[in-house]
Amino acid sequence: MIKISLITIGNEILLGKTINTNLAFIGNELAKIGLPLYQSVTVKDNGKDILRALEELWGKSDILITTGGLGPTKDDVTKRSIAKFFHKDLEFKEEIWMNIEKLYNQKNIRIPKIVKIQAEVPKGFNTIENKYGTAPGLHFQNNKKNFFAFPGVPSEMKEMVTGYLLPFLKSNYQTKSFYLKTIRTIGLLEAELSGRLKDVKETQNVNMASLPQLGMVDIRVYGTDLNEFNEMINMIEKRIGEFVYGYNEDNIVELCHKKLLSQNKTLAVAESCTGGLIQNMFTNNSGSSKYLLGGIVSYSNEAKMHLLNVRKETLEKFGAVSEQTVKEMLQGVREKFNSNYAIAVSGIAGPTGGTPEKPVGLVFIGVNIEDNIIIKKFNFSGTRKQIKEKSAINSIYLLQKNYVK
Amino acid sequence: MIKISLITIGNEILLGKTINTNLAFIGNELAKIGLPLYQSVTVKDNGKDILRALEELWGKSDILITTGGLGPTKDDVTKRSIAKFFHKDLEFKEEIWMNIEKLYNQKNIRIPKIVKIQAEVPKGFNTIENKYGTAPGLHFQNNKKNFFAFPGVPSEMKEMVTGYLLPFLKSNYQTKSFYLKTIRTIGLLEAELSGRLKDVKETQNVNMASLPQLGMVDIRVYGTDLNEFNEMINMIEKRIGEFVYGYNEDNIVELCHKKLLSQNKTLAVAESCTGGLIQNMFTNNSGSSKYLLGGIVSYSNEAKMHLLNVRKETLEKFGAVSEQTVKEMLQGVREKFNSNYAIAVSGIAGPTGGTPEKPVGLVFIGVNIEDNIIIKKFNFSGTRKQIKEKSAINSIYLLQKNYVK
Repeated sequence: MIKISLITIGNEILLGKTINTNLAFIGNELAKIGLPLYQSVTVKDNGKDILRALEELWGKSDILITTGGLGPTKDDVTKRSIAKFFHKDLEFKEEIWMNIEKLYNQKNIRIPKIVKIQAEVPKGFNTIENKYGTAPGLHFQNNKKNFFAFPGVPSEMKEMVTGYLLPFLKSNYQTKSFYLKTIRTIGLLEAELSGRLKDVKETQNVNMASLPQLGMVDIRVYGTDLNEFNEMINMIEKRIGEFVYGYNEDNIVELCHKKLLSQNKTLAVAESCTGGLIQNMFTNNSGSSKYLLGGIVSYSNEAKMHLLNVRKETLEKFGAVSEQTVKEMLQGVREKFNSNYAIAVSGIAGPTGGTPEKPVGLVFIGVNIEDNIIIKKFNFSGTRKQIKEKSAINSIYLLQKNYVK
Repeated sequence: MIKISLITIGNEILLGKTINTNLAFIGNELAKIGLPLYQSVTVKDNGKDILRALEELWGKSDILITTGGLGPTKDDVTKRSIAKFFHKDLEFKEEIWMNIEKLYNQKNIRIPKIVKIQAEVPKGFNTIENKYGTAPGLHFQNNKKNFFAFPGVPSEMKEMVTGYLLPFLKSNYQTKSFYLKTIRTIGLLEAELSGRLKDVKETQNVNMASLPQLGMVDIRVYGTDLNEFNEMINMIEKRIGEFVYGYNEDNIVELCHKKLLSQNKTLAVAESCTGGLIQNMFTNNSGSSKYLLGGIVSYSNEAKMHLLNVRKETLEKFGAVSEQTVKEMLQGVREKFNSNYAIAVSGIAGPTGGTPEKPVGLVFIGVNIEDNIIIKKFNFSGTRKQIKEKSAINSIYLLQKNYVK
């Protein structure tokens, strides 16, 4: 397997001012052609650190890529470090300079002197055209190894990766078909899930990773052998199929949204601890006004009584966080909005307000279709926002799974 | 200057499936105390690569941090690699096990066997409590050097960094005075802002960066000379003070939340295009139940009429997205909830539903205190979610700025 390493250059990344999306983009593109990234290093944009990173990684890589540090500003020392590392002089390239002049003329801007160094290239290096900026990319072949340097500006880098790097790799290396599927689950903790999947073995060619999301777990299966890949997916689904809600980019809210859109039914929502989040999730989807009539956030007991007709005796006897209250919230919101479906949630999002009998994280979720009602009790963990989010997602999932055909 | 290196462990990062936000968070926190990150490396989560990264970086670092690979699943080999690298055996720690048992018991779940290894710790290592999960963090001191291992789950890692790492660094290393202030503005575009600030010059020691947020712009001033730093801040505030809503971690929702908490007044919300987002933003804050009585999401005209007493004639004559409708929504929601303050919003979040007279992004926002009403018209740009968010933020800002003392 060939080894591809990436050096992302930039103080901004190390200072946490810029998130390293270049690594994510390049990593993903390489994975898709079966040449996954072996290692990535981020260093400051000064000559010494760049040189050291080149020394460390060139020896152990078949392909080395750098991003960043190819602009005209004062701290852009990457090109000099590269030239020094490969023992090349920089030479001024007329055709690159003409390209830069053209770009500035188009924008009607006088060319700053500092830009001149952008037309300098280490001897023997190929340049890669920059369609969106002035700094060209660099490519150098040596002893069957390949070195690439791209600008750090994402749009410029991406264009060079898709327009130059990937075609080059495909025609010079044995790229493989790479298969990847994400199986998305809800209802089991990561540890429970891996317990159930402990006899599903990774092979030389196919791997599996579990990725906990908030209250959900994704299982990612990826590799290069299609048979083994399909077999692994089948095994996983046999063991945990009932907890699978979707695949790849599927998400619960959108799945429920699509089902509701395809029907002629309406929905109303009564929220207590989720405080508007459920409705917010639905209304993030264009077209939700076709089924969502609206809802009531009844944060106070008064609101529960006056707006949702929850009985005072119910609140006094069972409390606001109870199956009984959620049941009356469901009935109340359906009456008010005259809807086919309803969701109601009441719980303790914390961090205060818990008691030994009703701890933080206790949430009752109810859904209602026409005259059927299901109410489930949950004990969620996490911060206030996490408990709100888990409650909202599970309420939407409960509706989608049980009712919406 | 002490050298701090970070190893982020995870195939997912190299495959571009996960963006390395842990690097950004840690980098930023270290920069703020004047101990910027020296280098960061990302490796796959297999024992050989983790070991190699430890070998490469431990020698040249004063402080080495790892994130990732501390969960219970089988590809979590980090802890074994760490133990091997430092020549320590793993020992089972009863107190950690008890903590894990407690967590599982609270959730009423049987503990999977696989979780047992989470209570194993390399001999001589301190453990760091995990408030949100089962895998403890690790800390090892050797020869004046310090090694830390944190879980990869951002919420768990962040809590350990702020609760343990930063206090440790502050009391054991000479943290430098590094001045940093973020001036947060709302109401001007980035280009308008930089036009007004064009005579504010950066110096050798103090820099400035503008960071556009959604409908807002942050101006970050940072550097090492306190006089120049204060001078730059004064200059900025003279020019754009009226658009400043806060500093550093301030956010509009929390500022409004705190003001409301300090009063004995109540709030109710009527939402149309924001679809629950305003109430969701308030209820993300613990204690919001003290002032937020609740609200109504009136996504349909029927809901506006029946639940908020908006008159049919108003809807027919002026439309749902109009100053008149918002005014009646304000009155209606205040009556229903009997609140002191109210917010009402109606607009077109798009991407469909716009007309030449009422284009996507047209939003009317109203706030009401006792018997005073202000209604403002906005034309927001962006996606559906961005228009919702800009509407919500501006409605909360309107309440906070004009009314809540």
